[in-house]
Amino acid sequence: MIDFAETENRLRNVLSEKRFRHTMGVTYTAAALAFAWGADPEKARIAGLLHDCAKWCTNEEKIRLCDSYGIQLTEAERSNPELSHAKLGAYLAQKDYGLDDAELLSAIRYHTTGRPGMTLLEKIIFIADYIEPNRNLAPNLSEIRRLAFSDPDRCICRIMEDTLAYLKEKNYSIDQTTQDAYDYYIELTCRKDDCL
Amino acid sequence: MIDFAETENRLRNVLSEKRFRHTMGVTYTAAALAFAWGADPEKARIAGLLHDCAKWCTNEEKIRLCDSYGIQLTEAERSNPELSHAKLGAYLAQKDYGLDDAELLSAIRYHTTGRPGMTLLEKIIFIADYIEPNRNLAPNLSEIRRLAFSDPDRCICRIMEDTLAYLKEKNYSIDQTTQDAYDYYIELTCRKDDCL
Repeated sequence: MIDFAETENRLRNVLSEKRFRHTMGVTYTAAALAFAWGADPEKARIAGLLHDCAKWCTNEEKIRLCDSYGIQLTEAERSNPELSHAKLGAYLAQKDYGLDDAELLSAIRYHTTGRPGMTLLEKIIFIADYIEPNRNLAPNLSEIRRLAFSDPDRCICRIMEDTLAYLKEKNYSIDQTTQDAYDYYIELTCRKDDCL
Repeated sequence: MIDFAETENRLRNVLSEKRFRHTMGVTYTAAALAFAWGADPEKARIAGLLHDCAKWCTNEEKIRLCDSYGIQLTEAERSNPELSHAKLGAYLAQKDYGLDDAELLSAIRYHTTGRPGMTLLEKIIFIADYIEPNRNLAPNLSEIRRLAFSDPDRCICRIMEDTLAYLKEKNYSIDQTTQDAYDYYIELTCRKDDCL
């Protein structure tokens, strides 16, 4: 496993102060979710630490880097290049930071869109990214934060519902993986409620 | 409320690197516990941030400072001066950092010994101090960390049980407040189980 303190120092030097603060929030929130849900807290905090490692550059640079590394981008990622930081982040976490655990790399890759049938670690990073204490602008945060520790699948549904509403309001393209993930988790939690 | 980023910077300058890392762990773990238990995450993270603010000086200096400020110390605190950092911390959090919320000051004061009938915020800081991800030496941490998010009173019992066993093994004096708190929480969780 990579050296936590050394990686933290490298990221402090390349990310903006605000982004680094968010990074540490995700790191510790991911560890707490791992405590609650019986995942490995060490793996959770390393995935949290590296989840935004591609956020040091501009959107134009992200697209150029993805193209030069042969990372396939969707139409939504090209029209909203901010989204590409997740795939690029998984690539750089391996190439530049030496992370070679497929489970952690996948948690970084899907932390923004989610995906149908996420692993526990993928869920933890997806949720931690949205609820960490430095985030205060999203609606329904109290409810979503409570659900994170009582019903993670329903928490994911609520996050995706609010994210899709935000993307539609802003007229941003919606990545197909986000839509697929939402459909999957809506059906899953609905099945739990016996409403199908 | 005090300015979080400014206080964080001040503490980074006065605490050792290891102590500052623990401080940030407690800060974020306290916020996560507040998410789970419906407490105010902002209050939780400020109490977490300042809980060890008196840890910058040696044990001898702690005792001298307590005496000069008129802070009453127990026999256990005089024979194990490390313990005095909690009372001194509550005093300095108000005097040097401008924290004037009685609930938060009390959470700092009791974060090491606990006390019978703790408030939710006092429980959160007491638990966060023990379970934060940089702590890895205590026994039974997986169980205690899981309990923190499922049954805080039972979590407190397990922490106190292991703490008392450690103090006895090391032949340290036990503060009466610690013993009273343990007796209270053992009876409380036992009553929940109908074993009385």
